[in-house]
Amino acid sequence: MPPSGDPQNPSRSSAPGDPLTGPTDRTEAPPQSVVDILIRDALVLTLENGAQPIDRGFVAVQGGWIHSVGSMADLPPDLEAGRVIDGRVRMVLPGLVNAHVHGAMTLFRGLADDLPLMTWLNDYIFPAEAAHVSDDLVYWGTLLAAAEMLLCGATAVVDGYFLEDAAARAYRDAGLRTVAGQGVIDFPAPGVPDPADNVAAAARFIDRWQGDPLVRPSVFCHAPYTCSARTLTQAKAMAREKGALFQIHVAETAAEVEKLVAEKGLRPVEYLDSLGILDEETLAVHAVHVTDEEIDRLARTGTRVVTCPESNMKLASGMAPVAAMTARGVQVALGTDGPASNNNLNIFAEMRSLALAAKAFGKDPTLLPAGQVLGLAISGGAAALGLTGQIGRIAPGCLADLILVDACPPNLKPMYHPVSHLVYAASGREVRTVLVGGRVVVDEGRPTTIDLKETMARARAIAARIRP
Amino acid sequence: MPPSGDPQNPSRSSAPGDPLTGPTDRTEAPPQSVVDILIRDALVLTLENGAQPIDRGFVAVQGGWIHSVGSMADLPPDLEAGRVIDGRVRMVLPGLVNAHVHGAMTLFRGLADDLPLMTWLNDYIFPAEAAHVSDDLVYWGTLLAAAEMLLCGATAVVDGYFLEDAAARAYRDAGLRTVAGQGVIDFPAPGVPDPADNVAAAARFIDRWQGDPLVRPSVFCHAPYTCSARTLTQAKAMAREKGALFQIHVAETAAEVEKLVAEKGLRPVEYLDSLGILDEETLAVHAVHVTDEEIDRLARTGTRVVTCPESNMKLASGMAPVAAMTARGVQVALGTDGPASNNNLNIFAEMRSLALAAKAFGKDPTLLPAGQVLGLAISGGAAALGLTGQIGRIAPGCLADLILVDACPPNLKPMYHPVSHLVYAASGREVRTVLVGGRVVVDEGRPTTIDLKETMARARAIAARIRP
Repeated sequence: MPPSGDPQNPSRSSAPGDPLTGPTDRTEAPPQSVVDILIRDALVLTLENGAQPIDRGFVAVQGGWIHSVGSMADLPPDLEAGRVIDGRVRMVLPGLVNAHVHGAMTLFRGLADDLPLMTWLNDYIFPAEAAHVSDDLVYWGTLLAAAEMLLCGATAVVDGYFLEDAAARAYRDAGLRTVAGQGVIDFPAPGVPDPADNVAAAARFIDRWQGDPLVRPSVFCHAPYTCSARTLTQAKAMAREKGALFQIHVAETAAEVEKLVAEKGLRPVEYLDSLGILDEETLAVHAVHVTDEEIDRLARTGTRVVTCPESNMKLASGMAPVAAMTARGVQVALGTDGPASNNNLNIFAEMRSLALAAKAFGKDPTLLPAGQVLGLAISGGAAALGLTGQIGRIAPGCLADLILVDACPPNLKPMYHPVSHLVYAASGREVRTVLVGGRVVVDEGRPTTIDLKETMARARAIAARIRP
Repeated sequence: MPPSGDPQNPSRSSAPGDPLTGPTDRTEAPPQSVVDILIRDALVLTLENGAQPIDRGFVAVQGGWIHSVGSMADLPPDLEAGRVIDGRVRMVLPGLVNAHVHGAMTLFRGLADDLPLMTWLNDYIFPAEAAHVSDDLVYWGTLLAAAEMLLCGATAVVDGYFLEDAAARAYRDAGLRTVAGQGVIDFPAPGVPDPADNVAAAARFIDRWQGDPLVRPSVFCHAPYTCSARTLTQAKAMAREKGALFQIHVAETAAEVEKLVAEKGLRPVEYLDSLGILDEETLAVHAVHVTDEEIDRLARTGTRVVTCPESNMKLASGMAPVAAMTARGVQVALGTDGPASNNNLNIFAEMRSLALAAKAFGKDPTLLPAGQVLGLAISGGAAALGLTGQIGRIAPGCLADLILVDACPPNLKPMYHPVSHLVYAASGREVRTVLVGGRVVVDEGRPTTIDLKETMARARAIAARIRP
């Protein structure tokens, strides 16, 4: 039986009468035999441990939650549905999670590429950000990002940027489950001209968004080399107090490691550990340059790692030792990073890049097999969001964050092993229909929550000002 | 002015009255002001050296050739067209070239993954091939491959497999420009039970297909370690005599290099050079493990290299030193390799993987910038096929092998630099319309030459017999 409560706000679903979210529309349980949506005759990948794909299966959704799932042979004959979705040429699986993105940076996508990191940052990205980042840019850039991510099957994201209120509004409007992190850096930043106010500004952001049905507020400290020890510890203490996730870029480049070792005598992960920052509510993004000892610290503290393989490759930063991290017990999720360094927000592409690059760098074709990579993108993402057990599986009582993927384009035929195709053969554009918390946010390839025409027009107008 | 002759058979267009192809339908030049197809109001990337994209441009196609190209401002007012294609939200560029594929192996796609190379080959691929490869499998598997490749923008391919007559028929039926290589190996093979007959069988294949309007026959020797020196030299002599391309896998794995060094005292490229096999009509596929000295041999002899980065990564074979090869003057093209080791046939994905992996492996974000990678996939491919100057550019007199790409999906917005987006942001599924030799073979996402429903049904039936 599905739990009662607000399906878009699972972390509070066990708090009856939550003052911030209020009662849901459906306070009485509906009759057993009526559901909102029934997906029938689909190939269902539940991602339950050890479960085989259900060749001809159904998924029923009620009030935003998974009501029931199984083989069509076991579909209750009296089950009525408000909407029936024909799944005959579809795979159904839990939505993918993009656990690290700077959505607003779609508006800097492809502005400059193929440059040394510092030239790219100092001559292109930082000046463009300084001159152009505004609430308007963040809102429309993030909405464009949300459209792209939904269209290729992400149902949950972890975002971090400045002026994050505008980003959070965009994700809420898009109907995308989001952890939104207000940026903290020890320099003047958009919306936070005085760095001394940066942690307090993030605290106010969190207060404004606590209890939102879809957007969980968070703090995003830029990096150990751009935030002082004081900033980092204050931000983490504030996040702990408010029950918020703490995001930070860490050990992205060899230069960062050298700088910290020179200044602090510690490598990045050691340094964060020395400050007491590593725990299950911290997302360590990148973690490219980490020693085995640092990997063990990440595992011991329960710190979640988010790997962004395409961004790390494009900037020639290196490759995170994902196979070693998972083998040593670190929870790893996948992220695209921002579209200025990727340059897309497609988790299908990220899965394939991770699987291929891990094998090539590790010189072992058995590293990171397809099933493990899909698991990182789904249950790894659920763990990063702190929603293990609530998203990432198709089981009664889980949130109805689901994607329906065209199982019949030429590039997915024939299909011996669906999971192999999702990782190695799919482009991401096979995603046809997307549900977040039971709401159909993409319907046969069309976003239902986002006015694409207006979003494109706004993006074009902003880009016309940025264009060098 | 476009040349006269058969646009699907450029290598013979200067031979009037070719007995195999006969005269074209249009023997008189049409009036200057009438063309078959006019693409108007598009963003045109001509890929001419140094040319800027034409923001609002046209391309006119007549008799299979590019008739004219330019800015809409320069469109002759009296130009009439049999069909006008609205290019307002489209990029137009020369079609991509997949310079190495084993199309029939779609039917083994995803049969087994994530295994050590020899386990994968000996326990899965070779037994499946021995048990199931037939004319029927090769024809339908190749037609499925052709559909996939056309739908993601390849207008020319170089294929190699056994029973290649069936593959050649499939490519001809699909309307895809093809170099088709009959496989040669010193073991019993499908269609060639006696290895002593392997070169003669390839010669007969070439004779059967010489002069085909669309399919140029070729010989594909499997590898230096599976073909004797005698087989290799005989096959190359035969190819030279018949004016056919010679394809060979070379230096794919470290194990291959060790084996040749142990047995012959030479590395693979040195060995082929010692046999007199390297020249401008030889395609050296993979070339992962090559020394600088071997790279110089490839450059000096004009040997074309085809790199297959995704296959090389997936099998953990390594990465070809593409940046070094191009810097030293080697012509490099891109290939997907077969779908059993990739597992897709998408050159857009291959471009991105090459650009990202070159930077990551080379630890330099400036290696293989987007423009260079697009050039490898287009003009590098043209060189591999021996069609430089005839395909790979949009210019009057070139073949009308063109693709129209949706310029307006969220993942390509905004668009500061179209070439960057084609390499880093596109998935390949943005391709909408494809012309080969002026024939519309994909029309707004639908293949016009291939019955997808029948092809899928045939693939499904064959796969049902293969399924382990």
